[in-house]
Amino acid sequence: MKIESVDFFYLSMPEVLDVGDGSQDALLVRIRAGGHEGWGECEASPLTSIAGYVCPMSHSGCKPVSWALDGMSLTSVNDIYKINQRVHENCFDLLQADHILSGIDIALWDLLGKIKQEPVFALLGYSQSYPKLPYASQLFGDIPEETFQKASESKKQGYKAVKFGWGPIGKLDAKTDREHFQAARKGLGSDLFLMVDIGTYWGEDTGKAKQRLQFLKEANVYWLEEPFVNMSLEAYKNLSCATPHVSLAAGEGCNNYHQAVAMMDYAGLKFIQIDTGRVGGITAAKRIADRATVQNITYVNHTFTSHLALSASVQPFAGIKDSRVCEYPVEARALANEITKEKILPNESGELVLSNKPGLGLSIDTENLKKYLVETEIRVKGKLLYKTPDL
Amino acid sequence: MKIESVDFFYLSMPEVLDVGDGSQDALLVRIRAGGHEGWGECEASPLTSIAGYVCPMSHSGCKPVSWALDGMSLTSVNDIYKINQRVHENCFDLLQADHILSGIDIALWDLLGKIKQEPVFALLGYSQSYPKLPYASQLFGDIPEETFQKASESKKQGYKAVKFGWGPIGKLDAKTDREHFQAARKGLGSDLFLMVDIGTYWGEDTGKAKQRLQFLKEANVYWLEEPFVNMSLEAYKNLSCATPHVSLAAGEGCNNYHQAVAMMDYAGLKFIQIDTGRVGGITAAKRIADRATVQNITYVNHTFTSHLALSASVQPFAGIKDSRVCEYPVEARALANEITKEKILPNESGELVLSNKPGLGLSIDTENLKKYLVETEIRVKGKLLYKTPDL
Repeated sequence: MKIESVDFFYLSMPEVLDVGDGSQDALLVRIRAGGHEGWGECEASPLTSIAGYVCPMSHSGCKPVSWALDGMSLTSVNDIYKINQRVHENCFDLLQADHILSGIDIALWDLLGKIKQEPVFALLGYSQSYPKLPYASQLFGDIPEETFQKASESKKQGYKAVKFGWGPIGKLDAKTDREHFQAARKGLGSDLFLMVDIGTYWGEDTGKAKQRLQFLKEANVYWLEEPFVNMSLEAYKNLSCATPHVSLAAGEGCNNYHQAVAMMDYAGLKFIQIDTGRVGGITAAKRIADRATVQNITYVNHTFTSHLALSASVQPFAGIKDSRVCEYPVEARALANEITKEKILPNESGELVLSNKPGLGLSIDTENLKKYLVETEIRVKGKLLYKTPDL
Repeated sequence: MKIESVDFFYLSMPEVLDVGDGSQDALLVRIRAGGHEGWGECEASPLTSIAGYVCPMSHSGCKPVSWALDGMSLTSVNDIYKINQRVHENCFDLLQADHILSGIDIALWDLLGKIKQEPVFALLGYSQSYPKLPYASQLFGDIPEETFQKASESKKQGYKAVKFGWGPIGKLDAKTDREHFQAARKGLGSDLFLMVDIGTYWGEDTGKAKQRLQFLKEANVYWLEEPFVNMSLEAYKNLSCATPHVSLAAGEGCNNYHQAVAMMDYAGLKFIQIDTGRVGGITAAKRIADRATVQNITYVNHTFTSHLALSASVQPFAGIKDSRVCEYPVEARALANEITKEKILPNESGELVLSNKPGLGLSIDTENLKKYLVETEIRVKGKLLYKTPDL
């Protein structure tokens, strides 16, 4: 059936703070066809992405992303692949395109699921969705005692895996970092998974990372995440060969399949972390998950925002039994929490199970979201190219 | 001295056609400090890049690029490095950022050159600028006879090197492609350099490429350019090991240092082609040129637009004597030709020599460009974030 409309909605908390919390604003995509509607979310700068959707053509390889959807139909997964291909072939010089495509592709899968009355993971070819072990993701405390308190609290809440990141880590001396790692481990006890996230803070500085390996090992860290900037293959590879060995995780910054493959082939990773809202959507993410399986690398979602983003990020590896761990947003702002009417909650075993409902299995709370709408207007040569549509 | 203003100007031909010609619009950046002004050009979607410069902050790692320049000074090259670092550390989740930074970084180098009364290549540490051999870049003809005519014409014009690309190549059978390669070689004679550019048309299909290797070899092709999409390292590596051996060139799609390094390390390239207007500017390009030299890979500029872009793209390898070949725009539209008052023309030996004037050595023809200005307005929550400034 013919795609009737594609609409972008820029939502934001009243105040956006200068902190590492990506749930303070959101860019939703709504696509309608044949009486159904699908929803997606771009993990991206909303205004920049809207501009890249409506911008005038610069040349044949730098077209607005809207061009790739114009006149298209949606009846099968091949139609989604065709739209992906049209974006890649016609927008390769529009750098923002992958982030824009991400939300569109997610909305297309949701929509197709609703048309066919199947969950997305089934459309992706998985015969079932396996339970995942959600890990709580949070900031290190300012002092080790605070890190200990946070870890104890997460254990009390029943989490079997916890990730600490950012905060003071890497910014002071290695001894202080060691105290934080030990405080986290002490708070969690010996059985829980503990992960550490540097948030690319060390740039390409392998020296700083190597100073901490022994301390990470002592705390029995399951993985060390993003010690370096995305695509700094040499620094990653170098660290992956160092002793003592600590498993490396990265990939959330990848904005297409090829970058993720480069990271899997040459960065020495044990875990590849993909954000469906950035990598080009569910289509690109599934292709990466397939390849990760062949290479014996564990696929993990990256999700820090809404349950719409969570469902979209888990579907691509829902059917991979051995990819057990799943990032679970626990500190998201009100906006992100209010996007969907339903939530994906851990069951009594503490595991996450995707719904079998059509599409992404969630409905959007449009009435409630109106208060977060950011009215936006773009005019070029006097012509209105974008104005916030009705939600 | 304090940076007083940073202004973006979106320029366009009255009509933009759906052809592979990136000179149909332009995004210029003007930066002023202490009575001087510097100019740069982004090889990017103008509207999308302007939006990424002024967009509201999403979180600490997704700030508008303008944030990185706020309150900054420019007195030394270290100030440029500092601004680059601020963009990378604060805008890493804004995908478009590298394309925006490109024009800003170029304008900063131009401005610093004017403040210090030195050409950019001298600021980059080169004791002199070596002559380059410009190659004319053009489309294949629709039929082999037309390709022959174009090649003969370029030879008559005195070019020592010619690149043919796009058009029918790769889209029909290998036999037709062979006739085009032979027609191009026949038109150029045996002494001139002939390059062939596929413009990523083969995606990741190494089979199609391998079918043509023998024919490329027969025509004594100096390099085969972009047979595959950017960052498809596996396809490139595979082709680079195939026989008969044809040297590979690629890299114009890289939007940062790390991607270029990945291509140099793992794609089996003999030539790395960098567009200063996309890769993050002169700063990133120079770092890539330094590394290419160590790895015995030949650095080549990618330039298809103005002489401002040409100067900015040649400066980073101006002092590398062995990197002889230089892409030279010969089919640019009126807009691109009218951006600078001066042109960088081949001398009587057919060689290109950069000017010793301060900065990029060119002045902008602002009066003449007013007719190309695209009036643009962006409003968020009723607040005017961008309006085309006075040129």
